[in-house]
Amino acid sequence: MDSLWFHRALAGKIKIVSKTPLKELATIYTPGVAEVSKEIAEKGNVEEYTMKQNFVAIVSNGTRVLGLGNVGPEAALPVMEGKAVILNEIASVDAIPLCINANTVEELVFFVKAIAPTFGAVILEDITTEVVLEVEEKLKGEIPIFHDDQHGTAIVTLAALINSVDSKEVKIAVVGAGSAGYGIAKLLNAYGFRNLVVFDSKGALHRSRSDLPKHKQYLANLNGLDYSGKLKKGFDVVISAAKPGAVKEEVLEGVKVLFALSNPTPEIDPETAKKYGVEIYGSGRSDLPNQINNAVCLPGFMKAILKQKIKRVEMKHMIAAAEAIAKVEKIIPRIDNPQVVGAIVDAIEKVENEKKN
Amino acid sequence: MDSLWFHRALAGKIKIVSKTPLKELATIYTPGVAEVSKEIAEKGNVEEYTMKQNFVAIVSNGTRVLGLGNVGPEAALPVMEGKAVILNEIASVDAIPLCINANTVEELVFFVKAIAPTFGAVILEDITTEVVLEVEEKLKGEIPIFHDDQHGTAIVTLAALINSVDSKEVKIAVVGAGSAGYGIAKLLNAYGFRNLVVFDSKGALHRSRSDLPKHKQYLANLNGLDYSGKLKKGFDVVISAAKPGAVKEEVLEGVKVLFALSNPTPEIDPETAKKYGVEIYGSGRSDLPNQINNAVCLPGFMKAILKQKIKRVEMKHMIAAAEAIAKVEKIIPRIDNPQVVGAIVDAIEKVENEKKN
Repeated sequence: MDSLWFHRALAGKIKIVSKTPLKELATIYTPGVAEVSKEIAEKGNVEEYTMKQNFVAIVSNGTRVLGLGNVGPEAALPVMEGKAVILNEIASVDAIPLCINANTVEELVFFVKAIAPTFGAVILEDITTEVVLEVEEKLKGEIPIFHDDQHGTAIVTLAALINSVDSKEVKIAVVGAGSAGYGIAKLLNAYGFRNLVVFDSKGALHRSRSDLPKHKQYLANLNGLDYSGKLKKGFDVVISAAKPGAVKEEVLEGVKVLFALSNPTPEIDPETAKKYGVEIYGSGRSDLPNQINNAVCLPGFMKAILKQKIKRVEMKHMIAAAEAIAKVEKIIPRIDNPQVVGAIVDAIEKVENEKKN
Repeated sequence: MDSLWFHRALAGKIKIVSKTPLKELATIYTPGVAEVSKEIAEKGNVEEYTMKQNFVAIVSNGTRVLGLGNVGPEAALPVMEGKAVILNEIASVDAIPLCINANTVEELVFFVKAIAPTFGAVILEDITTEVVLEVEEKLKGEIPIFHDDQHGTAIVTLAALINSVDSKEVKIAVVGAGSAGYGIAKLLNAYGFRNLVVFDSKGALHRSRSDLPKHKQYLANLNGLDYSGKLKKGFDVVISAAKPGAVKEEVLEGVKVLFALSNPTPEIDPETAKKYGVEIYGSGRSDLPNQINNAVCLPGFMKAILKQKIKRVEMKHMIAAAEAIAKVEKIIPRIDNPQVVGAIVDAIEKVENEKKN
């Protein structure tokens, strides 16, 4: 892989391009632009006249990047540029990375509120779980926030699950209680999957545990099987968003559906899954079948938020997106399947129209 | 002027474009991008692999926009998009507007430090004078800051002045003690013009005045003529960056050079100036001769800062840029004169090379 050379040659994976020739200077700049400023100041209709209508910030402080951990904002920049490319190529959304020095909840909340006048929506990426969940909570209703690791992964996982099981009564183990595990459990529960248990490295999240931070307490309350202790065989579905080693082989006995989402190395490889009789296997990798990656959802979802001028991402938007994605392919469409964007945009338009009626 | 319609049709004056096709997903995104993140985390060479090398933020809180005053960040957005177009069309610099909710010095300083990992330089625009001067002071050395209203206007004014007078002994009145007046007086003084007096609405800035905030005290110390009281005739050069009405006609007797920079309505129109025998007249308007607008300097200056990886804008960079601009045309080149960028880039490269020797 010549990633380093490729990145050096590109010198940045996105660029800014003017839509208008400089000869219009008197219109796009002073004196003509003053009229536009005045109009916006009076009527508050900034989306009508500016790039805000299609402009999204990808905000990260680089504290939890890929499998690399806390590499800092500069090292996070190429990853966020990659997300911007995906948003641009797939859905023509104008997205830029903002990799920032801001580590506390207060700093991140201030930062996102500060940029709200310029952007139609904000994507939070690769920030440590406990910080980002609190940030998202505090920003609700201020500006549309999409927490990709949480919401994106959850939507794509639900889409694949809808196509993989026949009943909401299946027993589901969610392994990993980070942003992804949290989002998956919350969305699956909202969709109606109640026989759900979330596991962290110490075992099932259960009301009896006294060592749980706030977001894990929330997940313990979703434990529909009153299950405690280590993960053992007996589940129909295992969804792991943890790390290699988090799921022991013997657990797979009787499992019909396994989504092993750790990236780049899945918790269980497809051969091992097959050996144990797993019928449907998904992972985060693009070189294996059934890639369950939040990038499947992100471009269409952001396009829909911008188009509908949604101020707050709600459960029903996420469920509508998951159902729309599920209809495109047998298990899960590829990231570059051109049907996905339109499917999500239409589904969320329908949600918004139903609200109005 | 159909500015409103034009802006609605454009739906944003700049857009984001991917430089790489999506089929390279495994290289530009996971797993390939991890190698790039690791490299940057280890070596701190983010500019080599990312858009940071050519990426500039135009930061404004909209508290002092054009002649409109405090219209807020959303109404400032079309103006900053216009600046981004100029930077892009003239110098191929990737610039985006960040119009923000941040009003105190502390908030603005925090914000600019926060975005430093992503951008090669930051342009401060249309922020109230006393706040922005303190912000600039506090950020010195943290990340290259260009305060366009101050530095840009000063450079372009000095360029035009170099081409308009034969001696550094001329008596110069600078009318207006906002960001532009402050920057002009400071740069002219650094260049060697010592017979200089700055006026605010109450009269000359002079050591004897007790009503002066910090930045005006600084200007009072540059008062090389020990001049106090109202502006009267007797100056060779009048440079006004104030507002219509700030310069009384009778002051123009004997004035050889008048730069009336108020925008869109100059303090004195060219006919009145001619009547009083003014030989060289300049204004901020594109439809009059000798447009003295910071946009003449901005694209080339930012390109030079990025190219030389300058961490702190210094007086010698600004003087070099002014001298370079002065050589391009008889008084001042037009904003779209293609020679300007190269002239500034070469001049600043020379400054940096001399530092190294």
